[in-house]
Amino acid sequence: MQTSRIILASASPRRRELLERIGIPTIVVPAHIDESVLADESPEEHVRRLSRAKAECVAAGMPEGRYFIGSDTVVVLEGRILGKPADRAEAAAMLRSLSGNRHQVWSGFAIHDRREGRTLDGAVCTDVEFRTLSAQEIEGYIDTGEPMDKAGAYAIQGIGTFMVRQIHGSYTNVVGLPLAELLDALAELGAGYPFMNREQQP
Amino acid sequence: MQTSRIILASASPRRRELLERIGIPTIVVPAHIDESVLADESPEEHVRRLSRAKAECVAAGMPEGRYFIGSDTVVVLEGRILGKPADRAEAAAMLRSLSGNRHQVWSGFAIHDRREGRTLDGAVCTDVEFRTLSAQEIEGYIDTGEPMDKAGAYAIQGIGTFMVRQIHGSYTNVVGLPLAELLDALAELGAGYPFMNREQQP
Repeated sequence: MQTSRIILASASPRRRELLERIGIPTIVVPAHIDESVLADESPEEHVRRLSRAKAECVAAGMPEGRYFIGSDTVVVLEGRILGKPADRAEAAAMLRSLSGNRHQVWSGFAIHDRREGRTLDGAVCTDVEFRTLSAQEIEGYIDTGEPMDKAGAYAIQGIGTFMVRQIHGSYTNVVGLPLAELLDALAELGAGYPFMNREQQP
Repeated sequence: MQTSRIILASASPRRRELLERIGIPTIVVPAHIDESVLADESPEEHVRRLSRAKAECVAAGMPEGRYFIGSDTVVVLEGRILGKPADRAEAAAMLRSLSGNRHQVWSGFAIHDRREGRTLDGAVCTDVEFRTLSAQEIEGYIDTGEPMDKAGAYAIQGIGTFMVRQIHGSYTNVVGLPLAELLDALAELGAGYPFMNREQQP
């Protein structure tokens, strides 16, 4: 993969970790954009719009680099987007509402290819089913500090894995970046794929 | 959780890591048992039998400890159990057979409660759908060394995550231990649950 050209427009350490785990080193440049949900915007529309905005915003501010990846993730319960909890009480309320229920995680992604002036984007939905949580489990999980900066008040790849019974769909999408779909898009843009470095290319 | 009493009868570092991530420190004592598949044994019967054998074998050899967890995981493609690849060629053949297809991962678990002379066991199946892999991706993945000691020649929680498009069922089950079902069984045995330590107990 011609990886020197990938810029990740996201401050999320878990997105960077996902890409680096599969051999795609990234330059991280957080995008500072308004993440408010627009009136009548669906979760899918919301994550696609923000992903595109992040990729293009960071590209606009940098003189170098070819491929810019933007991404955004939301947790959706019964059609309602759950953001990051403001305090312990809100985290507890979110976790109580997810307990024993099924919710959706939507992640959007956009890859802006500056040289070709082209942006590919997509959005992926994964169903997540939670165990029924006791009050003690919810309080104990909040005590770890993990829920406070996470959409929906949990991290599936962290301690929060104890709450998840099943998922249906992409796992990496719940972590924050749907890898299979992202790799398809990178291939479509001619940006290579994992384990393909310059030396191996024809 | 009264965690000082949990002994994990498995050498798998990924099972230990899963338990420790959710606040269950373990004492690891690998079980040395014959892991051959019996004639006419289904994947479910196989992983349940080995899980129970591992837990009870380790308990028999230790003078102390109350709860002993055994576990076993197999990868099943079209009804056939895929073991650990013997060499690069076999790893490549397994990955080619998984490419673009759906397979099943079965993990069994058994918890032996020595004080009560009781063993609870279970087995969980997760469907895993792979991307279509290029020859270069398969060779590149084998070059990382990761496939060689893994059933089915991949690790979903490692670099192998790049091959997985979707899963249906428990994610931790694919890693090697179905946490939700294991926590249910620990609770049934009165062994507590995450974030419940001695100080917090009534």
